[in-house]
Formats: sequence, structure tokens, C-alpha cells
Amino acid sequence: MEVIVIRFSFHNPTKIHFGQAMIKMIGKELREAGQHKVLLICGSGSIRANGVYDQVCNSLRDNGITWIEAWGVKANPDLEKTREIINIAKSEAVDSVLAVGGGSVIDTAKAVCAGFYLSDVWDAFCRRAEILRALPLYTVLTISATGSEMNGNAVITNEKERKKWAISSLLLYPKVSVVDPDIQVSLPPQQTVNGALDAIAHILEYYFMDSELHSTRAIDTALIKSIIESTDFLIRNPQDMAARANLAWCATLALNGISGAGMQGGDWACHQIEHALSAYNPKISHGEGLGVIFPAWIEFMAERDPIRFYQWAKQVWNEDTPSMGVKRFREKIKAWGSATSLRELGFQEADLPELCNILSINPMIGTLSRFGTSEIEAILMLAY
Amino acid sequence: MEVIVIRFSFHNPTKIHFGQAMIKMIGKELREAGQHKVLLICGSGSIRANGVYDQVCNSLRDNGITWIEAWGVKANPDLEKTREIINIAKSEAVDSVLAVGGGSVIDTAKAVCAGFYLSDVWDAFCRRAEILRALPLYTVLTISATGSEMNGNAVITNEKERKKWAISSLLLYPKVSVVDPDIQVSLPPQQTVNGALDAIAHILEYYFMDSELHSTRAIDTALIKSIIESTDFLIRNPQDMAARANLAWCATLALNGISGAGMQGGDWACHQIEHALSAYNPKISHGEGLGVIFPAWIEFMAERDPIRFYQWAKQVWNEDTPSMGVKRFREKIKAWGSATSLRELGFQEADLPELCNILSINPMIGTLSRFGTSEIEAILMLAY
Repeated sequence: MEVIVIRFSFHNPTKIHFGQAMIKMIGKELREAGQHKVLLICGSGSIRANGVYDQVCNSLRDNGITWIEAWGVKANPDLEKTREIINIAKSEAVDSVLAVGGGSVIDTAKAVCAGFYLSDVWDAFCRRAEILRALPLYTVLTISATGSEMNGNAVITNEKERKKWAISSLLLYPKVSVVDPDIQVSLPPQQTVNGALDAIAHILEYYFMDSELHSTRAIDTALIKSIIESTDFLIRNPQDMAARANLAWCATLALNGISGAGMQGGDWACHQIEHALSAYNPKISHGEGLGVIFPAWIEFMAERDPIRFYQWAKQVWNEDTPSMGVKRFREKIKAWGSATSLRELGFQEADLPELCNILSINPMIGTLSRFGTSEIEAILMLAY
Repeated sequence: MEVIVIRFSFHNPTKIHFGQAMIKMIGKELREAGQHKVLLICGSGSIRANGVYDQVCNSLRDNGITWIEAWGVKANPDLEKTREIINIAKSEAVDSVLAVGGGSVIDTAKAVCAGFYLSDVWDAFCRRAEILRALPLYTVLTISATGSEMNGNAVITNEKERKKWAISSLLLYPKVSVVDPDIQVSLPPQQTVNGALDAIAHILEYYFMDSELHSTRAIDTALIKSIIESTDFLIRNPQDMAARANLAWCATLALNGISGAGMQGGDWACHQIEHALSAYNPKISHGEGLGVIFPAWIEFMAERDPIRFYQWAKQVWNEDTPSMGVKRFREKIKAWGSATSLRELGFQEADLPELCNILSINPMIGTLSRFGTSEIEAILMLAY
């Protein structure tokens, strides 16, 4: 490994209120920031069942905030829905956005915050337009997974064009996010696991980069191990509130800048490949897709450059070789009831060329290695 | 350990530019924020010798920023000097402050930022006045130790009254801090070690609190071990730039909110006791004082509540008992050439009652245990 200068900037202005009963802070924060008319963006309605919606409305009401509601954001949020909500935001002339949901709702809300000031929001995803202004965003997180509650990234799927693309801006960092792990107690186990896999994948995107900032890697090891331990606890007992809290905080730290400090921006090949999977079939959960792709990617990369993967195998899995690390990683994913192959996700071998086609739209996949079609094919075969 | 609800807020808006040649960013940041007339606060002149002063002036000049200079802040910065600089700030009507130095310079600068809007800054330390406004603060860090570059705390010594007291405010977080570990290469080994001990002590103030947010403790373990490893490297080779970078980043994370997330504010008994040491004799370095007090505190506490200290002994020192952990901690401090007893710091047994008197001004010492005079005496004896 050649010596590479350690140089990075870190700036994360999001305020987090973490813990039980913190939802009541959201109305106060909006009021103190001088917001009057909020666009509340929500998913499919689970927040009505678990009481979160009522808690949010009470907090808004108590603080004299008026709001209008946009419901129906789904997993792998799509462009058409986003445009629809932007139209509501514009016609209602809201002054702020409050996302109540998981990463899909928050990402949609970020696109709305940016799109409010653009003629078409997809221009920002295509880099045809720059994000120069955005509505202030507030969030109440209902599932720990994407880390979107404490960063400026949003991923939206253009279903027509089968493109799952991202925007990123300092303007899109939430002003305030509430993370109350207690409200996640009603999540189905598979969603908890999807969240854990997503968070682990975020950390792994940074973990293998060339960097001598070993302290970041030591923190990352601690985060991955905490996520694994917490998820194990939650599989046994979904009501383990300490495990919920640890998983939630680790998932936030997994993509708020801490896990990637000094790691040269990360690799992101696995995320690009997974985005193609869910662009191909939006029913595939992002976390589950990553759980299929990441072990295959490590397997592929470690054959070419084993040294890079020894520390991960040792520190995370207490194994002496990368291949044993991959084996343990896949066993863990399987034990959590999640897919470990494209086949289990419903793909057939005949689908792989089409996946490669979707991926070939991207001018480059990955940072550590720039993948061409043959490498992508090889990884998809290992994942199949 | 009873179950305690995990609840905390995290908000750290400071932007960090980390790495070689990042000093050039400071003028640009001031210009982009619309600052015109900056008060440059500096220490004793070492920044003239190592080129940092020239780099800062060039960056200011290149960006059209005018500045005036206040020199001569010393370690354990005192109130009189702070008041003197506040008078300069007021009479020159500066619009911002740029601290170039270590924790003492930055803490003085924070007191200046707050004191600019107060009739007497000490009122804020005595809680007679609230900090409602502050000048915007920018910093260029020259020694990694206090973490002051990424938090809102400042500690100032009132030498006349032998009080070393603190203020804390969101308004005092630096807007931008530059951390260039390369400029620390010229530090004497003892200063590097003092910084490492200060950073370790910050983490330990949180480490032993009752909290089930074990992920924070796992991160803290990673930070402590990285600091120890980096300091070991730097004792052997002060030019090990990767070790400088790791030590620097860990010291920033040690007191920026990450190391204490969910840890109920920390204990801070050791810091209070150490503050009495350096209020008694301002020549004692804060880090070295902490290196004497913290092992004695653990020794004292672990006799009463050993379970609390097992994990630290195991995870940090790979030892099976707290007392063996303390032994290894003291051996490490000794190996780094730092004092392990009050005697080595120049105290005599006859000084201990007077130290107790200074400490008795504080209505309470510590959080885990509230210490009275007899407990303080016992810890000082263990430290002696």
C-alpha cells in the first residue's frame, strides 16, 4: 500500500435528539426556527398504527405549527411520487418539510426540499442543475438503516428509465432529526435485518480504502461488531430496547461522516451494483440486496488483493483468512433470515446480462478497482 | 447496574479541515462568511518558528482579510490576559476571532468571543451572566489535546482566586477549525504525551458511566487504543506522520460529543481535581496532572465497585482485573516519560490539605460518586 496523504473535511450540522419520548421536541424545534407551515411527508401508514403520527401531530399542535400531509412514499422511492409531492409543496407554499418515516421517506423529502427551487428535480440527479437552495428539512426516523437522518444524501429511482441515482448537498442535511429507537420495536424482524445490513454496507464501503487513518478503521470495526451483536439480540428478542438503541445509533454513525473520515470517499461499487438490482426489481429491499452483493464483492476482490481483507477477517470475524471472513459474513446473513444469493432474491441466470446492461450506463463502478463489464459479470456470478 | 433510559442530544456544527496544507483554507472560510476584520490570538511565538504564522497570514492576505494580533497566551490561560484581549477586541471592533495555537489559545479565544458582549467575562464563569451572543470563532490547531477545536467549552484560570473554571455554549463552537497534524511534528515529546493523556482522560470521563449504549463504549475503546498506539509510535519516531494524524483525529473525537454520546454527561471528578492542581501551581500541565489523578481515581473507585472497571481492564489493557489495568496504565504513562505521582509533580505531603481546601469550593465533585473531603483526601493520597 503506497503512502497516501490523509486529508479530509468533516462538517455535519444536523442536530440529533436521540431516545425515548424525544418526538415531542420536533414541534419546538420548528417553532424556534420560525417555521409556520410544514409539509409532512409520510409512508404507507404504519406510523398511524404505532402512535408515531399522533405524537408528531401533538407536538406540532402544541407549538402552533400548521401542516399539510403527503402520504404514500414507498420503499425505493420513485421519481413520479417525488414530483407529485414537489407540486404540493409549491402550490401550498410551505416553508419547511418534516419527514416521518425511514430512509425512503427522508430521501423523498430531501428531493422535495431541493426540487422546491428547481423546474424539474431530476435535473439535479443528472447533474444538469445545481442545488443552490433548499427548504429546511426536519425528520422523525422510524427505521434505522440508511443514515439519511444525519447526512445530505438522497437516492431516488426513476422507474421509467430504470435509474436509481443520488444527490448530495450540505443544504440537504436535516436541521434536526429525532431518533427514538423505542418506536422501532414494532418492526418486522426482516426490516430490522435489512436496516442492519444497510448500515454494515455503508461502513464497509469505507473500510477497505487505502488510508493510514487506522483510527477510523478501528471505529468502523467497533460499529460493525456493535451492529452484529445488537441484531443478534433483536433476532432473539425484538423488545430488547438497549439493542434497539445501539443498532440505531450505529446506523446513524455509519453514514454521517465519522465512519468514512479520511477514507477517501469510499468505494461504493456494491451500492452501485445493488442500485441496479432494485432498479430492475423495485421490490428488492436495499439492505437485503447489499447482503447478497457485498460478500460476493469481497470474495472477488480478495482473490486479487488478499492483504487488504485480512484485517477485516481478523478484527470483525476473528478469522485468519478473507475467505473464512466471507463465509462467516454469509452465515450471519443467513442466520438472520436474509438472502445470500441473487437466486433467493428471485433472479434467474438469464437476468444477469440485463443487470449488466443497466450497470453499463454508469461510466465507472467502484473506486478501489474500476470495474468493466467482465468484472461486474464475475461478481454477479459469485452472487448468483 | 439498573436500567437507565438512553437519551441524549448531539449537535456539533463545527467544520473541520483535516490534513497537510489545509491551513490555506482559513482565509477562504473567513471571506466566504463575510468577515473583514479578524482578531488573531496566539501563544508564545512557536508558530513563528514552525511556519504556521506565515501560512495563516498568507491565507488571510490572499483573501483580503485584515487582522490585528494579540500574542502571549500561556498554558492554563488566565483571566487577566483574557480581559486584556477582550479590551483589544472591543476597542478595535473586530468582527471575528481566529485562534492559532493549542487548547489554551482556543479557550482564551472562546472567552474573548463571549466576553465581547459582556461587561465582565468572569460573570459567565460564575453563572452570573448568560452567553447570549458571541463573535464567530475560527481556529488553527497546533497541538492535539483538549479537543477545544470541535466543542463549545473553555476553561480559564482566575489566578487571584485560584479558580480554574469552565464555560460551555453552542455559540462557542468554532465555525471552522483546521487540524493539520503535520505542523505538530516539531512538538517536544512531553507535549505530545500531555496531549495524548488529556485526550485519554476526556474519553475516560465518559467510559465508566452507567449506560447501555455499549456502542459508544466500543468506539471509546477504539479511540483509547488508537491514542496509545499512536503515542507509542511517536515516542519512537516523532516524524511518524500517520501516527500524528491518528492521534490528532482521536483527540478531536475524544471531546466532540461522539465519545460521550449517551453517557449521561460524564463524570468529570478527575478534571475537577486536576483543575485544583494547576490552579495551585499553573506550571503543571493539564495532561500530566490528569495522568497522575486518573489512575488513582480508578484505583479508589474500583475498590468500591470493581465490576464497573473490568471491561476497561479487559478491552483496553487485556488484563483480568481493574488493579492490573491501573498498573498497566501507570506503566504506560511512566514509559512515556510522564509523572505518575503528585510527588513527581513537585507536591509535598503538606500541600494536600491546601489542595483539599481549593476543591472544597466546589459544591460537588464527580457524578458517579459525589465526593466529600474524605474521598478527595483518599484519592490524593493514592496519587501522592
